[in-house]
Amino acid sequence: MNRKMIGKIMGFLLLLECLFLLPPALISIWDGERSALAALFTTMAISAGAGAILWLLCRNAERRFYAREGFLIVGLGWILLSAVGALPFWLSGEIPHYVDAIFEVISGFTTTGASILSNVEGMSRGLLFWRSFTHWLGGMAILVFLLAVVPMGKGGYSVHLLRAESPGPSVSKLVPKLRQTAAILYLLYIALTVLCVLFLLLGGMPLFDSLCTAFGTAGTGGFGIKNNSMAGYSPYLQSVCTVFMALFGINFSVYFMLLLGRFRQVFFNEEVLLYLGIMGGSIALITGNILSHYGGNIRKALHEAAFAVSSIMTTTGFATEDFDLWPQLSRSVLVVLMVVGACAGSTGGGIKCARLLLLWKSLSARLHQMLHPRSVSLIRVDGAVVREETIQGVNTYMAAYCAIGVVSFLILSLDNLSLETNLTAVLACLNNIGPGLDLVGPTSNYAHFSDLSKIVLMLNMLLGRLEIFPLLIMLSPRTWKKAG
Amino acid sequence: MNRKMIGKIMGFLLLLECLFLLPPALISIWDGERSALAALFTTMAISAGAGAILWLLCRNAERRFYAREGFLIVGLGWILLSAVGALPFWLSGEIPHYVDAIFEVISGFTTTGASILSNVEGMSRGLLFWRSFTHWLGGMAILVFLLAVVPMGKGGYSVHLLRAESPGPSVSKLVPKLRQTAAILYLLYIALTVLCVLFLLLGGMPLFDSLCTAFGTAGTGGFGIKNNSMAGYSPYLQSVCTVFMALFGINFSVYFMLLLGRFRQVFFNEEVLLYLGIMGGSIALITGNILSHYGGNIRKALHEAAFAVSSIMTTTGFATEDFDLWPQLSRSVLVVLMVVGACAGSTGGGIKCARLLLLWKSLSARLHQMLHPRSVSLIRVDGAVVREETIQGVNTYMAAYCAIGVVSFLILSLDNLSLETNLTAVLACLNNIGPGLDLVGPTSNYAHFSDLSKIVLMLNMLLGRLEIFPLLIMLSPRTWKKAG
Repeated sequence: MNRKMIGKIMGFLLLLECLFLLPPALISIWDGERSALAALFTTMAISAGAGAILWLLCRNAERRFYAREGFLIVGLGWILLSAVGALPFWLSGEIPHYVDAIFEVISGFTTTGASILSNVEGMSRGLLFWRSFTHWLGGMAILVFLLAVVPMGKGGYSVHLLRAESPGPSVSKLVPKLRQTAAILYLLYIALTVLCVLFLLLGGMPLFDSLCTAFGTAGTGGFGIKNNSMAGYSPYLQSVCTVFMALFGINFSVYFMLLLGRFRQVFFNEEVLLYLGIMGGSIALITGNILSHYGGNIRKALHEAAFAVSSIMTTTGFATEDFDLWPQLSRSVLVVLMVVGACAGSTGGGIKCARLLLLWKSLSARLHQMLHPRSVSLIRVDGAVVREETIQGVNTYMAAYCAIGVVSFLILSLDNLSLETNLTAVLACLNNIGPGLDLVGPTSNYAHFSDLSKIVLMLNMLLGRLEIFPLLIMLSPRTWKKAG
Repeated sequence: MNRKMIGKIMGFLLLLECLFLLPPALISIWDGERSALAALFTTMAISAGAGAILWLLCRNAERRFYAREGFLIVGLGWILLSAVGALPFWLSGEIPHYVDAIFEVISGFTTTGASILSNVEGMSRGLLFWRSFTHWLGGMAILVFLLAVVPMGKGGYSVHLLRAESPGPSVSKLVPKLRQTAAILYLLYIALTVLCVLFLLLGGMPLFDSLCTAFGTAGTGGFGIKNNSMAGYSPYLQSVCTVFMALFGINFSVYFMLLLGRFRQVFFNEEVLLYLGIMGGSIALITGNILSHYGGNIRKALHEAAFAVSSIMTTTGFATEDFDLWPQLSRSVLVVLMVVGACAGSTGGGIKCARLLLLWKSLSARLHQMLHPRSVSLIRVDGAVVREETIQGVNTYMAAYCAIGVVSFLILSLDNLSLETNLTAVLACLNNIGPGLDLVGPTSNYAHFSDLSKIVLMLNMLLGRLEIFPLLIMLSPRTWKKAG
């Protein structure tokens, strides 16, 4: 194993994190928040110091780089970033318990948005900004950012990182060079975020609120800066969020195609059609189901249904209404949407529509094969034949996903909370959503759980964001056995 | 499609059912139950008449027989048997609503044991016997019985039927000839049932109770003949059930190996080891968890835990205690066991240990492949390499299983009962268990649901028992399109 290379990249990541902590520090200076500022500066110093030392020690790393190193860097990198990113909350005393602080930051970086805080309005603005900023940073892969900005290593290196950190069953390159692909994706991400901020400002939202809300929307994270999440904002502002959440749930390569004018490819993209179809169907179903809950006001029902569906399906987790109080059908639809998730190649989590599409197509092919044993049935998506390997990958992913869900659910049961709480907490964390139902519903938080359960949920968030395998490989003893 | 062949076999099935209705009719004669007897005789007449007509009309069927016909016969056959088998309950007025009657009989034939009755002790003994007898008949495939007894058709025919009706990812022949395999399995089934009856009689259980209880145990069905299921019987009788339920959850080919003296193959059978391992682990976990619930009485806790685990994991569904009142960890373990199920090739339902074993091994192989992209990893079970096709089949099965579960869960939600009720009702029916939690817990029944939900749950039971594909193929429009 190329340990020096791993150390070098960890060093780089810490230096980057120091840079990322600058904007919240500036806000704390502006607002004169002393204890938050002290905590932020201390963290920046630790981060910069440790980063520089690691970098210097591992400067002369060889360039040999295999899949194992790729997975390890992703797994370790995300944990390191979170462990350091939690320090400001803990040092400032705003989250007194370190496990809670790291829960909050992992929830931020993984764009989950599950919180242990009951009173976010009591926090300093600097740290509130940092909390939302982690969503934006985590939304697009940080390591891919590194790849786009810093030339390091050659050949296989970048592919391994991109594969390990990118959501979805297959990575498609937009342009032949990986670095350029990453750069294009970043520009699109930034442009869409700026657009979101502008629309929010137009609706009279203060700049600070607009930035934080846009970060939560772009990363499909869902940390709110108000105790009632988005409920206090105007219907216009809520609708802006509804639309932008849905937009950030779409495969980013679609926007690139749009820019290139390849409209045919965009409008017949099977995954996007499935995504919009499920979204539209769910909104219609829930609108009808909650109509009497809102006294027959169809406009209000549609508004609330659209917000909730967009928020849950894109795995963002903002809330305007306590959907835990809705009738059972609506609650069940939301639970199913939690698992479905957004498109591959977006910032959203969940199983993702691309995988569902492949599962559906392979099921259909299998039925055909059973009736006509001698026929050969190929699976096609968007006209291209899907490789057998990709389908196997999806199946293995689903098996691992279920296994992790079941084990987590059992461990959470030790706390003796309700079955619904445990089940939806695991789904909400594993799919990077945030709120679940019952005790973890949109008006509640994760403070009820024991430390053990919180650690399990943190692992769920990381497993969900990194699509399981990097972390599984990191935790597998086999990976470490032949170290040298 | 060879419609005449299908008609001929349906006719045969109806004649068989007339024969199966004889034992309950004899009991009704003995006990002088007039209305039950009239209902049973009417059904026998209908069944024999319709069967004879069909048989005569389709006598000269060609012997061509493909996979499609095999699946159709299995799907249609089970529905026909249930539709006719429900008549005695309906005609006698003991279950006044026909949908309820067919729910009860499908629950019987599929060895589910979910009931809509709140007072079974108020029923006539003849119909109570018929109700339990359906478990025993459904436990081993009825069509395979036909195959063992009646020589009909040649070549592919029997394999298609056996494949379509047998539980588990692959059918292994014990001896080269399929008919002999089926006959051996039947003898084993009968022998074990007789043994169970004897042990129950030894404990002082009346003959009628012993027979009904043994039918429910052998078929891993779980219909009780007392309102409190098994709670009123002595601890010895309960323990006999615990042991026999566990025995009927084991792959029957293992018993054949035992008879042949191939002990090595038995003791190193990976599926059985996994099955016993999960069972033992769960009993230990639950015993510890419910210890305080039983005032520290470890013997009592172990007894109740073993009964509940054996009952749920083998998908039988007998109950001695209201496990719905146990702490959350125990309830969660039971929910997970509902999904796990028993061994392939047993009378139990669920996903089955063989599939879990294959999923686990393919997950492990996949992780290995990710770390060593150029290596080839074969999956072995019991020393033999598993074909890629089998693993694909398991994956497709899981995908279909999840899809059916999700759709059923959503439809049940329309009744606005609790999420826990809907979730566990679907799991309990799809896995052929019987009781779930909350409103469908062991002290409750399925009468709360609307007719639509009952129909969905019936389909779930059939899909679970027939392992999804025969029914899916029957319901698919493609199957009927090119009919001729």
